[in-house]
Amino acid sequence: MSRDTKITLPESEIPTHFYNIAPDLTTPLAPPIHPATREPLGPEALAPIFPMSLIEQEMSQAPTVEIPGEVREIYRLYRPTPVYRARAFERLLDTPAHIYYKSEHVSPVGSHKLNTALVQAWANRQEGVKRLATETGAGQWGSALSCACQLMGLECMVYMVRVSYDQKPYRRVMMKTYGADVVASPSTLTAAGRAVLGTHPDSPGSLGIAISEAVEDAAGRDDTKYALGSVLNHVLLHQTIIGQEAKTQMEIAGEYPDIVIGSHGGGSNFAGLTFPFLRDKLKGARKALRAVAVEPSSCPTLTGGRREYDFGDTAGMTPLLMMHTLGHAFVPPAVHAGGLRYHGSAPLVSHLLDAGVIEAEAYGQREVFESAVKFARSEGTIPAPESAHAVHSAIRHALAAREAGERKVILFNLSGHGLFDLSAYDAFLGGSIA
Amino acid sequence: MSRDTKITLPESEIPTHFYNIAPDLTTPLAPPIHPATREPLGPEALAPIFPMSLIEQEMSQAPTVEIPGEVREIYRLYRPTPVYRARAFERLLDTPAHIYYKSEHVSPVGSHKLNTALVQAWANRQEGVKRLATETGAGQWGSALSCACQLMGLECMVYMVRVSYDQKPYRRVMMKTYGADVVASPSTLTAAGRAVLGTHPDSPGSLGIAISEAVEDAAGRDDTKYALGSVLNHVLLHQTIIGQEAKTQMEIAGEYPDIVIGSHGGGSNFAGLTFPFLRDKLKGARKALRAVAVEPSSCPTLTGGRREYDFGDTAGMTPLLMMHTLGHAFVPPAVHAGGLRYHGSAPLVSHLLDAGVIEAEAYGQREVFESAVKFARSEGTIPAPESAHAVHSAIRHALAAREAGERKVILFNLSGHGLFDLSAYDAFLGGSIA
Repeated sequence: MSRDTKITLPESEIPTHFYNIAPDLTTPLAPPIHPATREPLGPEALAPIFPMSLIEQEMSQAPTVEIPGEVREIYRLYRPTPVYRARAFERLLDTPAHIYYKSEHVSPVGSHKLNTALVQAWANRQEGVKRLATETGAGQWGSALSCACQLMGLECMVYMVRVSYDQKPYRRVMMKTYGADVVASPSTLTAAGRAVLGTHPDSPGSLGIAISEAVEDAAGRDDTKYALGSVLNHVLLHQTIIGQEAKTQMEIAGEYPDIVIGSHGGGSNFAGLTFPFLRDKLKGARKALRAVAVEPSSCPTLTGGRREYDFGDTAGMTPLLMMHTLGHAFVPPAVHAGGLRYHGSAPLVSHLLDAGVIEAEAYGQREVFESAVKFARSEGTIPAPESAHAVHSAIRHALAAREAGERKVILFNLSGHGLFDLSAYDAFLGGSIA
Repeated sequence: MSRDTKITLPESEIPTHFYNIAPDLTTPLAPPIHPATREPLGPEALAPIFPMSLIEQEMSQAPTVEIPGEVREIYRLYRPTPVYRARAFERLLDTPAHIYYKSEHVSPVGSHKLNTALVQAWANRQEGVKRLATETGAGQWGSALSCACQLMGLECMVYMVRVSYDQKPYRRVMMKTYGADVVASPSTLTAAGRAVLGTHPDSPGSLGIAISEAVEDAAGRDDTKYALGSVLNHVLLHQTIIGQEAKTQMEIAGEYPDIVIGSHGGGSNFAGLTFPFLRDKLKGARKALRAVAVEPSSCPTLTGGRREYDFGDTAGMTPLLMMHTLGHAFVPPAVHAGGLRYHGSAPLVSHLLDAGVIEAEAYGQREVFESAVKFARSEGTIPAPESAHAVHSAIRHALAAREAGERKVILFNLSGHGLFDLSAYDAFLGGSIA
């Protein structure tokens, strides 16, 4: 059993395949359906905006999908990421629990989003695509895709929600440093943007509008496709590299987690860590394993939403997905964890919650920031507000273990650092977060 | 020879001792002298503001100094840091040179400054000190000391230059997140600050004023001492952990550098990487080794300054140090690499330059940012503007190697990331950096 603080792996241990949970589900996943025909969607319906290899992954029942060699080569820039044993944090909490965290914040863009961005950029380039269009809210996904496109030799066009564009200038600069084009959305570049500006010239924008602009951009140009940073099956698939590495690292630590925890917005960060562990549960080898998705109580998709067919965007232009949703017209309040402000949930995560395989918890902003500051002051790293939801849940379970006198093993995903979110910490420290 | 992109070391390879270059110098280092008596300074003169163990290190002729066990334990949070082989960067430059960089930016505070901050906090606590006072300009050092004090259980008081306090709010928030008290300098908390405010109520502050405030704070309270982030011998000593690790990592890579490069402000980052290699040169084993200190052409301490006794601060209150200096009244222009805006140079670095053991180069802001963006677009990481000076020098030497058809091995120190400096990148990308 390792006594190290960081459990590292050599680059030779970067996984060669992504893990596909779909064939291991005990009941089949409900397919996406066409809003008009109510028929399951065929691959051709997605071809205008996604490359065929990603559409195949979206619908694949293969147990694994090979990681392209060139992607694995670039993963070496930051992967395998360390798993930390949070000893100082444990001492602060005075808990018998062992707390581990997977540190996805060490990627050059500061979050796990680069894992899938690189695969998507590569897959598009393989099919002759020259340019990717996407939307970004807080900027994590836009930064990741900008970096991936630059490293893969593609152009990148980011529609950034106007209010973020104005309030988070550093994220915008980061994308431009990586060579991307960034415009505030709504923009005059698309019909969707112009329509909004026509009636609301001062519109602050929304993720829904930005998605409409990026999809229109991709659908209207032969050289361009669209890329999404969460929710879809293929995106979750790419993130399973996180949990696969973590399983090897926990073996080195000589422990198997009782509880695995990830924050939940669209679902890819939670799925990335937990799916490879959930394979053991679904196969019957680890029936007691608990997997916890943590969301903000102000946007309680899993804990307060219903599972039904709903649109992925607010404008109602995407295929219908079977998912936990607050309704595509739901407008989440402006919580600081911008990456968790999504009305829906990944179909795979929703399916597992409905099947009782996973659990969900929701917490308020103030308690989450309290936990984030405790973590920063013992482990040094300042978590992203999104990731801080997982930190807070880890504390709750560690304190419960103390109450019960049980030596639980807890593993959570530190999906991103908070260096672009210090205005939120400022608000918390100044007492203005209720 | 390793084929890995990242050359990592296990935590068991964290060095047990710092390397002290002082006894390996071929001529003795000129001592600090008292400005009034012109006599060499005794330890007692520094006792009001520094703990005795650090004063002993400052004057030590021992070949090594043991690293405290508790400091080594906390180093595990981020050390050993990886050495990267910059393959994508080499391809971009089409050079036969092999380019490596030591990645000190992976520390929780984003720079190498935490290496010495932890030792200083520990050494003060050992002698009963409860609180440290310091100054910070751009905020790198203040962030590092705030984090170190929190992890070591000390209070921290940071006097932050007013103009940075207003323009770099995120650095201030980072320090507060780590639990430090941060005030804009000049402040009303000290006589020095009140004197400035009395005549200049709107003073933007300066590093010189902030140093005066922090020293006055420390000298006036029994529970408080002062901490400095560069220049002094003991600070450079603590940074030698960088070069010691890098030597082991270059052995694993199967190469020995022809050229080692560090950016130069006060000298600790340059010294940290290069001194352990320079030991080989001073001992005669690597006579051809080149060590290059890189500074901004707007603050050319080494390339344009004279070596003479001068004050460390602008107000003329510190002991006189024998160093390359532009004169303590020199006010550097407002370059974006704030950490390199210092009129002097570490006495040890100045001594080595005068002895012909090391070299110095100076470059302009625009060319440095051009190189920084090239680096970010091939290696993913956005360098701090300070570190970008080393990046630029590495490019120059790699291109010279291409011209000469020589397969040089280049190693530079990526001392910090640029995530708090994106406004400078914005200015560069927008064309407003001349």
